[in-house]
Amino acid sequence: MLDYHGDFPGVATYEDRTLWMSISPDPWRLLTGGPSTTPSTRSSSEIIDYRKEHLGKNMSISYLHPIHAVRGHGVFLLDDTGRRFLDTVNNVAHVGHEHPRVVAAGQRQMAVLNTNTRYLHDTIVEFVEALLKTMPPSLNVAYVVNSGSEANELALRLARTGTGQQDMIVSEMGYHGNTTGCVAISSYKFDGPGGKGPSKHVHVIPTPDVYRGKYRSPDEKAGINYGSHVRGALKMIKEQGRGPAALIMESVISCGGQVELPAGFLTHAYSDVRNAGGVCIADEVQTGCGRAGDHFWAFAQHGVTPDIVTIGKPIGNGHPLGVVVTTQRLAEAFQNGMEYFNTFGGNPVSCAVGLEVLRVIEEENLRDNARIVGGYLKAGLRELMQDFEILGDVRGPGLFLGIDLVTSRETRQPATRQAAYVVNRMRGKGILMSTDGPFNNVLKIKPPMVFSLEHADFLMGALAQVLKEDFLRVGS
Amino acid sequence: MLDYHGDFPGVATYEDRTLWMSISPDPWRLLTGGPSTTPSTRSSSEIIDYRKEHLGKNMSISYLHPIHAVRGHGVFLLDDTGRRFLDTVNNVAHVGHEHPRVVAAGQRQMAVLNTNTRYLHDTIVEFVEALLKTMPPSLNVAYVVNSGSEANELALRLARTGTGQQDMIVSEMGYHGNTTGCVAISSYKFDGPGGKGPSKHVHVIPTPDVYRGKYRSPDEKAGINYGSHVRGALKMIKEQGRGPAALIMESVISCGGQVELPAGFLTHAYSDVRNAGGVCIADEVQTGCGRAGDHFWAFAQHGVTPDIVTIGKPIGNGHPLGVVVTTQRLAEAFQNGMEYFNTFGGNPVSCAVGLEVLRVIEEENLRDNARIVGGYLKAGLRELMQDFEILGDVRGPGLFLGIDLVTSRETRQPATRQAAYVVNRMRGKGILMSTDGPFNNVLKIKPPMVFSLEHADFLMGALAQVLKEDFLRVGS
Repeated sequence: MLDYHGDFPGVATYEDRTLWMSISPDPWRLLTGGPSTTPSTRSSSEIIDYRKEHLGKNMSISYLHPIHAVRGHGVFLLDDTGRRFLDTVNNVAHVGHEHPRVVAAGQRQMAVLNTNTRYLHDTIVEFVEALLKTMPPSLNVAYVVNSGSEANELALRLARTGTGQQDMIVSEMGYHGNTTGCVAISSYKFDGPGGKGPSKHVHVIPTPDVYRGKYRSPDEKAGINYGSHVRGALKMIKEQGRGPAALIMESVISCGGQVELPAGFLTHAYSDVRNAGGVCIADEVQTGCGRAGDHFWAFAQHGVTPDIVTIGKPIGNGHPLGVVVTTQRLAEAFQNGMEYFNTFGGNPVSCAVGLEVLRVIEEENLRDNARIVGGYLKAGLRELMQDFEILGDVRGPGLFLGIDLVTSRETRQPATRQAAYVVNRMRGKGILMSTDGPFNNVLKIKPPMVFSLEHADFLMGALAQVLKEDFLRVGS
Repeated sequence: MLDYHGDFPGVATYEDRTLWMSISPDPWRLLTGGPSTTPSTRSSSEIIDYRKEHLGKNMSISYLHPIHAVRGHGVFLLDDTGRRFLDTVNNVAHVGHEHPRVVAAGQRQMAVLNTNTRYLHDTIVEFVEALLKTMPPSLNVAYVVNSGSEANELALRLARTGTGQQDMIVSEMGYHGNTTGCVAISSYKFDGPGGKGPSKHVHVIPTPDVYRGKYRSPDEKAGINYGSHVRGALKMIKEQGRGPAALIMESVISCGGQVELPAGFLTHAYSDVRNAGGVCIADEVQTGCGRAGDHFWAFAQHGVTPDIVTIGKPIGNGHPLGVVVTTQRLAEAFQNGMEYFNTFGGNPVSCAVGLEVLRVIEEENLRDNARIVGGYLKAGLRELMQDFEILGDVRGPGLFLGIDLVTSRETRQPATRQAAYVVNRMRGKGILMSTDGPFNNVLKIKPPMVFSLEHADFLMGALAQVLKEDFLRVGS
């Protein structure tokens, strides 16, 4: 999530307005056609100044020239000048920014009832019922919470209470949330800036990355080899006289650089963890709700069934909503006398929003769209690799792609500065992108799921233009 | 938060419909006059059956006869039969269930833009600006999150990063949230059912309860005496070779039984904690936003200024919203290289809702209302004490009251069963109440802040009726 705050030599600061105009001749159309924006009473620099003084300081703003957003609409964000940006990075606005059906569902419920789950209301039942239909049958108990962090926090409690153990096996560069408990299992955080490494109950296995990691494709045993590190962690836990609580993995490692888990890895890992008495948590906060295309949940690509699934970002389309889904066994074990109550969790508004998101995914065939458009985009980007040496790898399922930029395909040296350059130049061309991975050299593509073939073409055209620019040809 | 699930001998199960009818002759009026309800397609028993199977099992539903809520309106909740209940317990619906201005603000922003804080938008600035105006000047950095639990989680990180220490001093029966980190500082949880006691970094001081605790009124030194336990905890931390991270206290201990902190306690405690290098956290999740009447934040009653204030429930009027406010010094220290990003935290919809809540509190003079109506109610309840021995103590500031029920005023033996009886009988009379405290014998009163003198009279009238019933005269 680095945003390069230096400057790039020899780069014009004007913004190309031609390309994005080709999609809509009138960028203000949405502003005047849809609900009106709240008039912006402050300039960008006033907002930045206020934030520096009065908001949390350890949070970066995207882009050299930040975007002052005033309107979201489908795959687009609009800024305070009326300029429209194609959003290729916002997997929170899952079914599209301000999707009219989701907005209407939230608006309607907001006006009628919004209270807690100590009273009975229909919405939570309807939402959970719809959600559980997307899950393997054994995963049939849901806890509704307010964020991915809250979901992973609860998953930790379920796993630890259910097993009576504390130890967690996690992936290098995994990210699971911003609370103390979530940071403690997020190598992306505890191994990153300001981090203090893992605690004694947290065991980190190498990122199962077949492009850049310890075992690489085309080694067909990569999955098994990465899995052996899970076995190693289990052995170490046992030697220390304890047992594992859980393995927690994102189904595609997102902040780690959009890393797909190799075939066979999860099958072996799950089996070993369970044999040792632990449970398996699939973190689907980034990858869930149809984004993977072939499956509604990305873990299903690997033919495994977790004991706990955590859901966040996409399920509320921007509304603060998360869910934990688990088995009867773990839910029963969690009922140990201590009550679990969540003030806002499962309120009728959040549930109405979540229900409508699920309906829209199904009725607008967005999972198919992710498969088709994602496949088209991935194939197109792979074609671009023929023209641009900097494109080292293109990977990911459905609309959850990563482009690994390298200064040399042979050494796979990460092209970090170049990636920051591309992101900021693409912003100039009206396209929002972002980088991630341990070297911040991986372009993330995880747009609203209403992303079309036309948007994919627009993205690839602009990318091809930027990749031809002098800064990238000269090299790092 | 116990709901008595046994049954009461000799109690009629009919529900008195006369009293509440006297307030509104047509309970359906609100249903037909306001926005329509979502039609309820399930019966209460169908919902209960589904919840038992598919929702978290360790969560109680309120009342022997649960309420199937379909509509909220001001101080009222309406059930699926159109029956209206006076809500005396829901401090989340702070400015009134579905307050039209708050609803409109949320609806409007929902349709326009809802994205994260990596982009600039006006709403977060407006919200934080309005919020900081209510705070002492030194508390001028805000982090917007999604719940009270998330707020307290972040407060822990701020305190621990800022001091470089881990140890927390907490109150017996304190409650701060549902995450692992929050449970670990919540004696209400770790000393309650299913709990495993405090960890070595958590030091519990006795509930500073002058009615039921170690030092009692009229002892004027109670505050200092309770404060000496903070000093004792500091001494123990020092002897173990460490220093304190923070003291965290609710400004009125809520789950502990609506316990007001004695005069002088916080002054001494804050001073001692700071002298030992720790910081002071005021948990205002239950008590904040004008509820205390005399002050916007309940800590201010004690003439202290915390280093961190956590805000939850009331600020979003039901919308998932929490805030942490702290000093420049702690915010700077937290900027240690590790980024703090919260996906939903500070989104424009949540901020628009929070801003409107603050405006409504001010423009409808709800803090004054809390002071006036709360004072009236407290005086009235104290008058009732003359007629009913069971009313052992009436306490609390503004509209945050507790009625401590006892079987004997002399022994102060908690009247636990009687309290459960009262709550369920009051439900029968159309009034929602709840119990809390270590013996679940304290009736909590913390209604929406639009609670009027008429509502107070209605509540007291019904209570006087119930207190005359046979079950209570016979005794436990």
